[in-house]
Amino acid sequence: MKILRSVDEVRAQSSAWRSRNLKIALVPTMGYLHAGHLSLVQQAREHADRVIVSIFVNPTQFGPNEDLDRYPRDFARDEQLCSQAGVDAVFYPEPAVMYAPDHSTWVLEDSLSQTLCGASRPVHFRGVTTVVLKLFNICGCQLAVFGRKDAQQALIIQRMVRDLNVPVELILAPLVREADGLALSSRNKFLSPEERQQALNIYKGIQQAKETFRQGCRNAAELIAPLRQRITDAGGKVDYVEVMAQATLRPLTAIDQPALLAVAAFFGKTRLIDNLFLEV
Amino acid sequence: MKILRSVDEVRAQSSAWRSRNLKIALVPTMGYLHAGHLSLVQQAREHADRVIVSIFVNPTQFGPNEDLDRYPRDFARDEQLCSQAGVDAVFYPEPAVMYAPDHSTWVLEDSLSQTLCGASRPVHFRGVTTVVLKLFNICGCQLAVFGRKDAQQALIIQRMVRDLNVPVELILAPLVREADGLALSSRNKFLSPEERQQALNIYKGIQQAKETFRQGCRNAAELIAPLRQRITDAGGKVDYVEVMAQATLRPLTAIDQPALLAVAAFFGKTRLIDNLFLEV
Repeated sequence: MKILRSVDEVRAQSSAWRSRNLKIALVPTMGYLHAGHLSLVQQAREHADRVIVSIFVNPTQFGPNEDLDRYPRDFARDEQLCSQAGVDAVFYPEPAVMYAPDHSTWVLEDSLSQTLCGASRPVHFRGVTTVVLKLFNICGCQLAVFGRKDAQQALIIQRMVRDLNVPVELILAPLVREADGLALSSRNKFLSPEERQQALNIYKGIQQAKETFRQGCRNAAELIAPLRQRITDAGGKVDYVEVMAQATLRPLTAIDQPALLAVAAFFGKTRLIDNLFLEV
Repeated sequence: MKILRSVDEVRAQSSAWRSRNLKIALVPTMGYLHAGHLSLVQQAREHADRVIVSIFVNPTQFGPNEDLDRYPRDFARDEQLCSQAGVDAVFYPEPAVMYAPDHSTWVLEDSLSQTLCGASRPVHFRGVTTVVLKLFNICGCQLAVFGRKDAQQALIIQRMVRDLNVPVELILAPLVREADGLALSSRNKFLSPEERQQALNIYKGIQQAKETFRQGCRNAAELIAPLRQRITDAGGKVDYVEVMAQATLRPLTAIDQPALLAVAAFFGKTRLIDNLFLEV
């Protein structure tokens, strides 16, 4: 497995592969890998001949009061996990490799990114779409894999690819959970044992909403209210609990089209997200 | 020469060429071609194996009170000129091919585009960078040619390519003038014979500034003032006359680095631009 640090190294590797007609998949990550990331690598291996994992804690998707500095990092462990997972190359750039001091060009999705995490984190998705397009261009990949855990991100990247005619096929992979149901996240390590137990109520509340939906309820408020209550009762602070149309990410009152139940909540200082895709 | 109307047609043609290792150049235009455009085609032919000219009057780069509707169009003539110039394919999409009704992703350069035409035309460069990136992605070109007539546009596209790691090589081709010196522009056709004569003072004033610079003057104001005066005296309405650093497009007082003397002025209702690159 190769560790590539510069744009030129990645381009040389990618060109060599492409000249042999090998299909390249990219799995963009911020590192501190867990089984969720490895499931994306697995999908990439199934659909392409070579897999690049990028590991880059992208500063432009963090707001000034967010957790850029304390975002967890452990490259030695990530490298070992990638190698065991059959990754062909890891792109691990320094921030200066990715952003010139006078960087001034942004990719901005201005509709789907207005709600949910976009409302709470105003520059977040601008940073995500910008870095993802850069990574696509650097890696020359024909395929990229994103997780549905970051549901809004996945839908925004789908939109970007469509709107800018980006020649990359997307695979959106299912959310992966711990044995007890908590959605896997690099930020779970910040939870105290007590918060970890409390946070499980996000999952339990989503399961309850899923059952309510399965029984035929199409009233968004009836899915939202109990979930919100459950998180609050458990000591969490709700950022949002919403039911949105998948096509627009605007709130639905009646669930009459493909929808997304999306949750963000703080337990202690740690912000967690989870979701459920509702297909009608 | 092929006329391609859909994204899929262009992609199929481009893939076929690329699979034969042919280098593809794109010359993006808004049509109503003149000798300036044809000089870009010539550059493209010299540096690549196949040349695509795109002809698309891009609505997103026109402001609400600008001349989108009356922008000149003559596809039959453009087609003939391209064919005679040795173009291999013309991409001539309808607006609906380029923009979905819920298009929501933009490429935004937010530094170089704040001044000059960007100050007068607030959405203009957002439309330009977005459509140019789309055209690059659709055409799968390795090379693209832009004219220095649109100097700010050329510098912004250079910046976009750098910032987003776009895998396209750029050639910036020299401005082409009429025999008497007026910069070629599709909008020149809007000038009355009298305005056409008045407008020549942009060129004459630039020539005068060039001579002042050649004689050693490095004071921006001494280049700007006579040029501004000359345009006004000729009956033109100055939008801007500025000397900017090429690297930042911020105004220079002393010309101590590569600079751009840039002019925009109205003669009648027609807005014309011209410029001079000042190398120190």
